[in-house]
Amino acid sequence: MGKKIVTIGEVMMRLSTVEKERFVQADAMKVVYGGSEANVCISLAQLGLEAYHVTAFPAHDLGQAASNYLRQMGVKTDFVLEGEGRLGLYFLEDGAMQRAPRIIYDRFDNAFSKLDPARLDWEKILDGADWFHWSGITPALSQNAADMTLEALKVAKSKGIMVSGDINYRRNLWQYGKGPLDIMPELVRYSHVLVAGLTDFENCLDIQSDDFEDACRQAKKDFPQIKYITKTNRDSISASHNKLKGFLWNGTETLKSKRYDMPNIIDRIGGGDAFMAGLIYGLLHFDDQKAIEFATAASVLKHSIPGDANLVHLDEVLEVMKGKDIGKLKR
Amino acid sequence: MGKKIVTIGEVMMRLSTVEKERFVQADAMKVVYGGSEANVCISLAQLGLEAYHVTAFPAHDLGQAASNYLRQMGVKTDFVLEGEGRLGLYFLEDGAMQRAPRIIYDRFDNAFSKLDPARLDWEKILDGADWFHWSGITPALSQNAADMTLEALKVAKSKGIMVSGDINYRRNLWQYGKGPLDIMPELVRYSHVLVAGLTDFENCLDIQSDDFEDACRQAKKDFPQIKYITKTNRDSISASHNKLKGFLWNGTETLKSKRYDMPNIIDRIGGGDAFMAGLIYGLLHFDDQKAIEFATAASVLKHSIPGDANLVHLDEVLEVMKGKDIGKLKR
Amino acid sequence: MGKKIVTIGEVMMRLSTVEKERFVQADAMKVVYGGSEANVCISLAQLGLEAYHVTAFPAHDLGQAASNYLRQMGVKTDFVLEGEGRLGLYFLEDGAMQRAPRIIYDRFDNAFSKLDPARLDWEKILDGADWFHWSGITPALSQNAADMTLEALKVAKSKGIMVSGDINYRRNLWQYGKGPLDIMPELVRYSHVLVAGLTDFENCLDIQSDDFEDACRQAKKDFPQIKYITKTNRDSISASHNKLKGFLWNGTETLKSKRYDMPNIIDRIGGGDAFMAGLIYGLLHFDDQKAIEFATAASVLKHSIPGDANLVHLDEVLEVMKGKDIGKLKR
Amino acid sequence: MGKKIVTIGEVMMRLSTVEKERFVQADAMKVVYGGSEANVCISLAQLGLEAYHVTAFPAHDLGQAASNYLRQMGVKTDFVLEGEGRLGLYFLEDGAMQRAPRIIYDRFDNAFSKLDPARLDWEKILDGADWFHWSGITPALSQNAADMTLEALKVAKSKGIMVSGDINYRRNLWQYGKGPLDIMPELVRYSHVLVAGLTDFENCLDIQSDDFEDACRQAKKDFPQIKYITKTNRDSISASHNKLKGFLWNGTETLKSKRYDMPNIIDRIGGGDAFMAGLIYGLLHFDDQKAIEFATAASVLKHSIPGDANLVHLDEVLEVMKGKDIGKLKR
Amino acid sequence: MGKKIVTIGEVMMRLSTVEKERFVQADAMKVVYGGSEANVCISLAQLGLEAYHVTAFPAHDLGQAASNYLRQMGVKTDFVLEGEGRLGLYFLEDGAMQRAPRIIYDRFDNAFSKLDPARLDWEKILDGADWFHWSGITPALSQNAADMTLEALKVAKSKGIMVSGDINYRRNLWQYGKGPLDIMPELVRYSHVLVAGLTDFENCLDIQSDDFEDACRQAKKDFPQIKYITKTNRDSISASHNKLKGFLWNGTETLKSKRYDMPNIIDRIGGGDAFMAGLIYGLLHFDDQKAIEFATAASVLKHSIPGDANLVHLDEVLEVMKGKDIGKLKR
Amino acid sequence: MGKKIVTIGEVMMRLSTVEKERFVQADAMKVVYGGSEANVCISLAQLGLEAYHVTAFPAHDLGQAASNYLRQMGVKTDFVLEGEGRLGLYFLEDGAMQRAPRIIYDRFDNAFSKLDPARLDWEKILDGADWFHWSGITPALSQNAADMTLEALKVAKSKGIMVSGDINYRRNLWQYGKGPLDIMPELVRYSHVLVAGLTDFENCLDIQSDDFEDACRQAKKDFPQIKYITKTNRDSISASHNKLKGFLWNGTETLKSKRYDMPNIIDRIGGGDAFMAGLIYGLLHFDDQKAIEFATAASVLKHSIPGDANLVHLDEVLEVMKGKDIGKLKR
Repeated sequence: MGKKIVTIGEVMMRLSTVEKERFVQADAMKVVYGGSEANVCISLAQLGLEAYHVTAFPAHDLGQAASNYLRQMGVKTDFVLEGEGRLGLYFLEDGAMQRAPRIIYDRFDNAFSKLDPARLDWEKILDGADWFHWSGITPALSQNAADMTLEALKVAKSKGIMVSGDINYRRNLWQYGKGPLDIMPELVRYSHVLVAGLTDFENCLDIQSDDFEDACRQAKKDFPQIKYITKTNRDSISASHNKLKGFLWNGTETLKSKRYDMPNIIDRIGGGDAFMAGLIYGLLHFDDQKAIEFATAASVLKHSIPGDANLVHLDEVLEVMKGKDIGKLKR
Repeated sequence: MGKKIVTIGEVMMRLSTVEKERFVQADAMKVVYGGSEANVCISLAQLGLEAYHVTAFPAHDLGQAASNYLRQMGVKTDFVLEGEGRLGLYFLEDGAMQRAPRIIYDRFDNAFSKLDPARLDWEKILDGADWFHWSGITPALSQNAADMTLEALKVAKSKGIMVSGDINYRRNLWQYGKGPLDIMPELVRYSHVLVAGLTDFENCLDIQSDDFEDACRQAKKDFPQIKYITKTNRDSISASHNKLKGFLWNGTETLKSKRYDMPNIIDRIGGGDAFMAGLIYGLLHFDDQKAIEFATAASVLKHSIPGDANLVHLDEVLEVMKGKDIGKLKR
Repeated sequence: MGKKIVTIGEVMMRLSTVEKERFVQADAMKVVYGGSEANVCISLAQLGLEAYHVTAFPAHDLGQAASNYLRQMGVKTDFVLEGEGRLGLYFLEDGAMQRAPRIIYDRFDNAFSKLDPARLDWEKILDGADWFHWSGITPALSQNAADMTLEALKVAKSKGIMVSGDINYRRNLWQYGKGPLDIMPELVRYSHVLVAGLTDFENCLDIQSDDFEDACRQAKKDFPQIKYITKTNRDSISASHNKLKGFLWNGTETLKSKRYDMPNIIDRIGGGDAFMAGLIYGLLHFDDQKAIEFATAASVLKHSIPGDANLVHLDEVLEVMKGKDIGKLKR
Repeated sequence: MGKKIVTIGEVMMRLSTVEKERFVQADAMKVVYGGSEANVCISLAQLGLEAYHVTAFPAHDLGQAASNYLRQMGVKTDFVLEGEGRLGLYFLEDGAMQRAPRIIYDRFDNAFSKLDPARLDWEKILDGADWFHWSGITPALSQNAADMTLEALKVAKSKGIMVSGDINYRRNLWQYGKGPLDIMPELVRYSHVLVAGLTDFENCLDIQSDDFEDACRQAKKDFPQIKYITKTNRDSISASHNKLKGFLWNGTETLKSKRYDMPNIIDRIGGGDAFMAGLIYGLLHFDDQKAIEFATAASVLKHSIPGDANLVHLDEVLEVMKGKDIGKLKR
Repeated sequence: MGKKIVTIGEVMMRLSTVEKERFVQADAMKVVYGGSEANVCISLAQLGLEAYHVTAFPAHDLGQAASNYLRQMGVKTDFVLEGEGRLGLYFLEDGAMQRAPRIIYDRFDNAFSKLDPARLDWEKILDGADWFHWSGITPALSQNAADMTLEALKVAKSKGIMVSGDINYRRNLWQYGKGPLDIMPELVRYSHVLVAGLTDFENCLDIQSDDFEDACRQAKKDFPQIKYITKTNRDSISASHNKLKGFLWNGTETLKSKRYDMPNIIDRIGGGDAFMAGLIYGLLHFDDQKAIEFATAASVLKHSIPGDANLVHLDEVLEVMKGKDIGKLKR
Repeated sequence: MGKKIVTIGEVMMRLSTVEKERFVQADAMKVVYGGSEANVCISLAQLGLEAYHVTAFPAHDLGQAASNYLRQMGVKTDFVLEGEGRLGLYFLEDGAMQRAPRIIYDRFDNAFSKLDPARLDWEKILDGADWFHWSGITPALSQNAADMTLEALKVAKSKGIMVSGDINYRRNLWQYGKGPLDIMPELVRYSHVLVAGLTDFENCLDIQSDDFEDACRQAKKDFPQIKYITKTNRDSISASHNKLKGFLWNGTETLKSKRYDMPNIIDRIGGGDAFMAGLIYGLLHFDDQKAIEFATAASVLKHSIPGDANLVHLDEVLEVMKGKDIGKLKR
């Protein structure tokens, strides 16, 4: 077992149309489970880390199925609780060509967002952990969820654990009376690695800039504990064809990955989470330049895998980074 | 086109496991749409009536898909509205043998239950109608839904339209502060045909009896406009094997149908709705005895059809009633 | 390789609904190929005979697929021709419980029925054959098909080949200007084994009787070359539950098989053809009583197999005949 | 409800192989319903028009299923009749890469082509209509179908309804004794918008030219009521990769759309019908240049959707026309 | 977490035909993982025990998938190792009606059977365990597997752990030079609960008797540590219809369960393992009579669930034991 | 029937994941049968040759299914034997984008490799044959398989039959004590057409060169009977996008085919076998340049077809060679 990583967040049932059908054509849907932070966790479990996800599900068989899914994919579910509330859902209509994918979220009142923060013993959860990861989706769900995150961050700090936060601004969440500027700055104050684009800087940290590196420098001024800020640039030629490049600002300079061409996308959901997981793995094991290359290559591979999670091996990511005989069958 | 029937009620997306899998085994689900009153409506459309269903869906593609489903099956959707709120869902784990089916409802905050009653012009909706059908599920959803039902019933009365109500007591609903005894008696006061078992009598009408006919007589005393009370008796030998018999109290006596053996059940959901539809059709076209036979035979056929709705032709029900060469292939 | 059998007849693409769906629910159909006589031929190929089927398909890829299907299942396709005309189709809606299966035939103008009889060299086709089998469907399709059958029968007679005919009266065929009484008696005159029920006797041979044995005796008087007349009695408790019993009149007496209970039918199509194949095999290898038992047991097994054809091994039929530990898993 | 459009034409059951299988590999087929004019009608229904399709189906459950499909997709089926004859079919083998798709038509004797023209009351059908659309496939099916079309056109003229005709020359049709030159010129005489390529001009209107604009001018001379002639140019790099550009001659000049690259085609069937629908919508709502851009963008989207019909929303077409962040997921 | 149970044994990939197809019809197979002892372990995990399975898989992705499956279903995989050798397979052709299911085993050289016994630290594995379960399949696989079992049993004895052994004689195994009589008696010497039928007694323990209770008494004489001997009687009316009854000899008398009728079997594989798991649970929590009733009811439920494993909840088994309203849907 | 071709080799069951799933996601697998030489044979059967494949399967239903598959696809199975041993398997995880496909072979102890060479009467098998094809996989399986190949080659030589050998070096085979240099040179001595890349030359013939043409000349020196040496160059841009070009050294010069772009690969397995089959067909019917073009175009088409085998018609290959309107639908 490798290093210990802990993540927190809602896990939803994903119901997706099949064979490129539209919602109005669907008479069956594929079922899988995912959520931004759990996707990161699953990905790190595949790469060999000891990965714990903290969440809650309703006490029925589909909640159990969601929990089982995490377990199947190698995630430690010791801190997966049962609680009141729904199983969050999202419906995915797969896109293709010039037709964009569509998502219908149906996640309000999910069991995780209603979880009593007192039920989580962070001293125990984070005991021996090397890394803690959270995202901006969690504090956007409910006051409880925001409180949990903050408490986890405080304990992480007391234990000297490395913390990453994906400042993932979602306009349609934040419905419980608070806005991102009420909550996010304090959470960011405990975080060493941020994923943030220009919109996230503005909406979550009130940092306005039209240049990534400049925004990073501003953020560093406000939050001096920050070590890395990262993001990807995605060009969308079509729903089937994107290009992807990763950026990592390390306080000094902005390192860049290769730019990958992805003309036959299978499933783009979770691409950002795969990047995040790759970056965590990279920063734990490689130098900065290799870390951003690893993260981007991992994200590219995710686009080839159905479902939310990046089910790839370490050697497969390294192989893509080599850039030779890509995708070749070995017998 | 035959007589005009109007029904009202929530329509849910039904997500069911396939090939007898349990929820924890499911990685795909079958999608269909249904709800007690809509099932009645679809069934009557198959039998040739001009059948309108009144409901509301959220303004997204899955709401559209639900509406399209009604339309596909021959229901008139002129009074299907778009509104705020969710698309109600239910998850079905198909049972088999000694293993009971399981349902997980996820329907709170559905668009129908949040519909502003003022958006429904019952004078127009019921114009020329021969029959109006409602069920105890609707007033159990929300005050709005209860109000809509009452208003519809008043207009129906003013127009002399025949009314049936399926007094379907569901313990897990009724979460908006009212109980069945607050609401149901007034609704029943406008209804001529009731579906009610002993539990329904007790919970909805405060009529306690351990005898169906006695309970019927008590009901008639309280609600003298009642013409028929009906129910089925279902023996559950296993999830795959039930026996079914229909009863119709017509104010004078309790007529009984044949008792049907159903040892190879395909899908029992909607069996009661198929019975209700069969009874409406029967009372509109046949004498009382034939009506109850027709209703029961229709319900039996439903058990052979996947999905909520009883997609059968008139001649198929009549064929089953004959009781000879049942299920025989004709070339 | 066992004895050589030759059959003739149309082979259709069968498109059937899945998972007990009705036609109006189907958005996919299962594809297989079958036809009464080809079903007999495939069944005999499974039992180890050298089985040739004579037919024609259109010269397109679906015609090829039909031909390939015969080949896959062990039928010799040396006399499968390409010709003008359609690939006959039939649509099957699987029945269940009290709901009868439905078939929509779409077979007119099929390539077999339009085949020029001159293209078939019966001297060559029947060379070395031990048995020739035809059915009443073929002469009902077209004059060409009736002519081919007659020619085949004449050559069979000249070679002393045993001939069986399934007098299968189908009211919806016979659309080319002739009726069964114009054609069938002459064909029967060359046949030694007949499958015929009372309706077939009446419609095809103008023999009226309400008793099978009596009808057999009348037939023998008119057609003295007849050695055996056979039929099954099928009780249809429901589409899922039939009972089956076989009868074989051998000129002297009517031998009867066990009566089999079939309460979980998978696919009843081709049950009669499986019986016919079993009888041919039985008469070629066993005594009369064992032959009728074998035929009926074979037919029973067919009901457990999806598709038209009875894909069973010899030992499986014999096992069923033993009547002990039926259906038991052997490891 | 938007403007009223009426279309006429055969609707076939489409049976297509799945997962890129060839016909000889198929043991299941996907079922959907389509036909050139119905595809136009469905597409316009999605865009919000009140769309009626005129056709006929056999009086069996699959005919009903076809009719239900139209209804499901929002088409008004008030003028869908039942009649003698078959349900037309076509089998589709999906192509991929350098392997072309294959179609096997099996549509002769379909119920629509045998419909007695007297059963259609065009005064009623076209009452209040804004547009009538026909294609060259209909008059190629049968004399009856040609007669219906002509009658419809005459009534349309009397009512001042805009008419479009897709001069779609299909060599394999026209089997009832007439050729396109016998029939098409008269029909074109009533039409204001034509879809026509150089081959269509030659075969249907006897106009020979190797230049589209020149052919248009010739046509205008012969048929002075014509307002627009339109076509698309499709480059086939492979079955998976086409390029598409639209052209609209408006009597003065030939307007051109952007040229779209389509390197990941999902289903190209119905691409032309989607273009036609887009053009009708465009000409009803936009200026000429925007109309041709809209038509082409709509057709491009069709290539991403399985089935014959272009199930897209207005805003999706407009989004593609913008040409930025194409195919991007919005959350 | 409940009591700790440890099991050992090979886990195979199961490849089964779908929709009742025969092997010769299959162009797809369902994948699941199972093995007699792992099935017991999974079942006990569902019932709430802390269940560890000891086995080995090859170090490839399908070995990982098998391990993940155990994990998904709640089994602790701390002692699942990677090793040289194959992933054992078995192919299952589902039976139906009078047609027996067929199994083709392809398990030789599986990684478990080649595992070096020295890699298993039984002191650690059995630390704190309440029960150890083995079956006669394991020592039949290889000398290594027999050695592992013996070593486990010795440690279990030293720790005073309760031991059950399923004396499951499989004629086709035992290919490594030893026979059951060479190995089994010593293993039985450490076991307190045996599953054994008359054939097993004879082949594995050289005890000949035609009476179960008599055989039990003989066994007790030879192996005085035995506390319980158990078996089921299964009547096979057909592959779809069995009857099942459980027997438990407790040293004094033979307790019997109700006899269950199972006329609609979904999947009978693992029925014996479900019984074993039920008995272990029963003996740990109930009195002897309730234990045998629980075991049999659990086994009955297994027949309703696709796959090898009995995925049922405690309350579902108790519900079946009540024998009222079996299989009834609760809303 | 065209010319007679004979091939020899193992045929495996291929179990592949669906919908781009990874092995760890698979709960169903697609089943098809293939092997390098059988793939060549099937392909030649589609092109109209009389194609015989020599192999052996275990005497169970899946062995029968494999044999039936060959028969279905037009291969003559007169010399397909039953024998002891397993049915070889391989598991395929389909790749996509930058993610390479994965294969897990599970073929040791297959029935073909254990076949007693004495059971094959090569005089009879090769009677009248025009071409014999073998590959380097066969002698790598077992001594028996190597012996069979050699014997076949000797008889082929005595009959003056053209011989091709695909020198397909597979490092993971050759486990029976011999290496390629012990066996391959002698087999090559009887062969006129070789498929060989630089690695194959080195490993199988001890010819070291970094230039194809130079290696060919060296081979010709050692094996003067060689007439042609051929290979393809495959650029792997990704698993979904390859480029392919064919080379044919004819003793004088190296002829080259067009280079094909394949950006939407459906299934690349069997691409080399399709090339080989194309070359055999080409050399039998065309001049050298057209032969190599034909072979490469055939291989390109294979990439569009699921399964191992190249199920294409002659006219489809010729169409691709034309290079115009590639992939265009013809109606």
